Amino acid sequence: MKRTPEEELLAANAAFYDAFATGDIEAMDELWARTVPVACVHPGWPALHGREEVMQSWRSILLGEAPPEIRCEDARASLLGAAGTVVCVERIGGDALVASNVFVLENGIWQVAHHQAGPLATESDAPPPGQRLN
Amino acid sequence: MKRTPEEELLAANAAFYDAFATGDIEAMDELWARTVPVACVHPGWPALHGREEVMQSWRSILLGEAPPEIRCEDARASLLGAAGTVVCVERIGGDALVASNVFVLENGIWQVAHHQAGPLATESDAPPPGQRLN
Repeated sequence: MKRTPEEELLAANAAFYDAFATGDIEAMDELWARTVPVACVHPGWPALHGREEVMQSWRSILLGEAPPEIRCEDARASLLGAAGTVVCVERIGGDALVASNVFVLENGIWQVAHHQAGPLATESDAPPPGQRLN
Repeated sequence: MKRTPEEELLAANAAFYDAFATGDIEAMDELWARTVPVACVHPGWPALHGREEVMQSWRSILLGEAPPEIRCEDARASLLGAAGTVVCVERIGGDALVASNVFVLENGIWQVAHHQAGPLATESDAPPPGQRLN
């Protein structure tokens, strides 16, 4: 049965986390878009712009140590024409992060154009929403 | 002179931060897309999905207290067809965050489809990139 665009987006997102979890820098490189300006925001880092900076960061993360034990949960896709977003939770060891991944169709394939991950506060350190700036 | 799509994206991004900084909940509501599933990740929060949840969060942030003193710096736009991203630094008081904002064209107007902001580590607490997971 043909997959919906949202299912295709989720499959591309799963491939991203497979490359991440297995430390497969070649697969990671293939997943990132080549026709648009890409950007990446690792947790706490300043934004990285352009394919060269972004892929250098993935090399330092994936090749520097043992691959991170990361898994993706609660992935939800939104289709925006020939682009799309997937929002998910990243579990790394005991930590949880929230990630936004933006994909763009290149030659009919969903490629990563943007990634941002940031920490998810635990219940003990998160103030109620109404008291939280931004 | 006609603006480029990237300039239009940056103008939409500036309007978003104007609404944010002035606590203008009506302007914020008008800026968010209506034809696609929207999502929003405030710093430390779990992802919010759908217009109702997202706008409720903005009401609690913008109407709960004095509007946050926020300003946007270093905004950079990437065009992805009828969608686009803007990555920027948010300055709130002495804090810095990095934000990813995703826009979608609705009736020729760039509307916000997604926002994620997360903390930017200061030099004293950021490990070198190679030692940082994700």
